[in-house]
Amino acid sequence: MVTLSVSTSNRVESQDITHLISQEISSNNWDDGILTIYCPHTTGAITINESADPDVVKDMTMEMNNIVPFDDGYLHSEGNSAAHIKSSLIGCSETVIVENGNTVLGTWQGVYFAEFDGPRTRKVLLKFVNNK
Amino acid sequence: MVTLSVSTSNRVESQDITHLISQEISSNNWDDGILTIYCPHTTGAITINESADPDVVKDMTMEMNNIVPFDDGYLHSEGNSAAHIKSSLIGCSETVIVENGNTVLGTWQGVYFAEFDGPRTRKVLLKFVNNK
Amino acid sequence: MVTLSVSTSNRVESQDITHLISQEISSNNWDDGILTIYCPHTTGAITINESADPDVVKDMTMEMNNIVPFDDGYLHSEGNSAAHIKSSLIGCSETVIVENGNTVLGTWQGVYFAEFDGPRTRKVLLKFVNNK
Repeated sequence: MVTLSVSTSNRVESQDITHLISQEISSNNWDDGILTIYCPHTTGAITINESADPDVVKDMTMEMNNIVPFDDGYLHSEGNSAAHIKSSLIGCSETVIVENGNTVLGTWQGVYFAEFDGPRTRKVLLKFVNNK
Repeated sequence: MVTLSVSTSNRVESQDITHLISQEISSNNWDDGILTIYCPHTTGAITINESADPDVVKDMTMEMNNIVPFDDGYLHSEGNSAAHIKSSLIGCSETVIVENGNTVLGTWQGVYFAEFDGPRTRKVLLKFVNNK
Repeated sequence: MVTLSVSTSNRVESQDITHLISQEISSNNWDDGILTIYCPHTTGAITINESADPDVVKDMTMEMNNIVPFDDGYLHSEGNSAAHIKSSLIGCSETVIVENGNTVLGTWQGVYFAEFDGPRTRKVLLKFVNNK
C-alpha cells in the first residue's frame, strides 16, 4: 500500500492527483491489474472527471454546494454534516484499470481528491492487485 | 464469498456493519488484498462514513430524503422509486484495502449498510481478492 | 481488458448492459474473482439498479435531471456541466463479484451504462482479476 499526501486550499475543491498516481505506478512497477484509490477521510472523496477544462470541477464544487447546503438543520455538533453527506454521495474510493504500467483512463479523465471540509492536509491510499 | 445478514428497523437508515466485516476477515484469514463489499438489493447501498457520532448518519438520512423526495411524480408502480434513486446515488458497493488481516479504514470511518426501503432483512456480500 | 460498445439514443438515459457483460465472462472463461466495469467518459457513468421494471430507470433519469439542472449558471463553455456532475454523483465504475463463471447480482439487479450527454457511441471497459 502506498500513501499519498494532498494539501487542499479551500473549504470545497477538487484537486487533480493523476500525476501522483502515475508516478507510483511507475516507481512500484505495477503492470497489469486493478488499482484501488481510497480516501480514509469522512469529509473527502475520490472522483474521476474531466481534467482538460478546470471550469468543470469549479462547476462541480458550486453544484455540490447547491445540492447539499452547508446549513440545513443538521444535528452533528461539529457543523460539517454537509461535508460528510457529500463524501457519501461522491464515494470514498475509485477503482481504475492498470495495463502496460499505466492507468487506462479516458482521453479527458483525471483522478481527483474531492475536499469538502478544507483546507486540510489529506491522505490518499493506493492498493494495487495483480492480474495473474 | 461470504454472505452477511442485516436487519433494518426503519424506512431509511444506515447501519454500521464494520464489526461484522472485521469478524469475517479474521475467521477467513484474509490477510493482504482488497475486499469488495456488495449490496445485492436495488433499494439499499453500501457507504463509508463517520462511525464516532451517530448524528452524522442521522443527518445523512434526513438530507438524502430532502435530495430525493419520497413522492415526485414517479412512474414505477411499487411506490419506492426514491429508494432506487438513492441506491444509485450512494452506490451498491465499496472496495476497502486489507493489510495485516484487517481493513485499512480511516480513524473515524465505519462501513454502513444504507437502507432506503425498509424495514427489511438484507444481505451484504463480501469477496476478498489476494494481493499475490 | 475487454471493450464493449454502447450506442445511446437520448440526451439522458440508462441502458442495460448485463447481457453484454455475461457474454464476455463466458467467452473469456472468467470463473472466480471480481470484475471492474469502467466508463472512460466524463459525461457517463456505470450503475446497478432494477432491471425488471423499465419505469425505474425512467424515474432515475427524471430525478437526476431535477437534482442537477441542465442550466444553473455553469462556467464550462461546452454547456454540458450537468452531465459531468451527474457522472461524479453516480460514479464511473462498479465492481461486481464473479463466481462459477457468472456475476453474482441480486434477483432484480442489472448493470447499466448511464448516459448524461447523448446520444453518443460509448465504450465500457471490463477488467477481471482472479481470486487465486
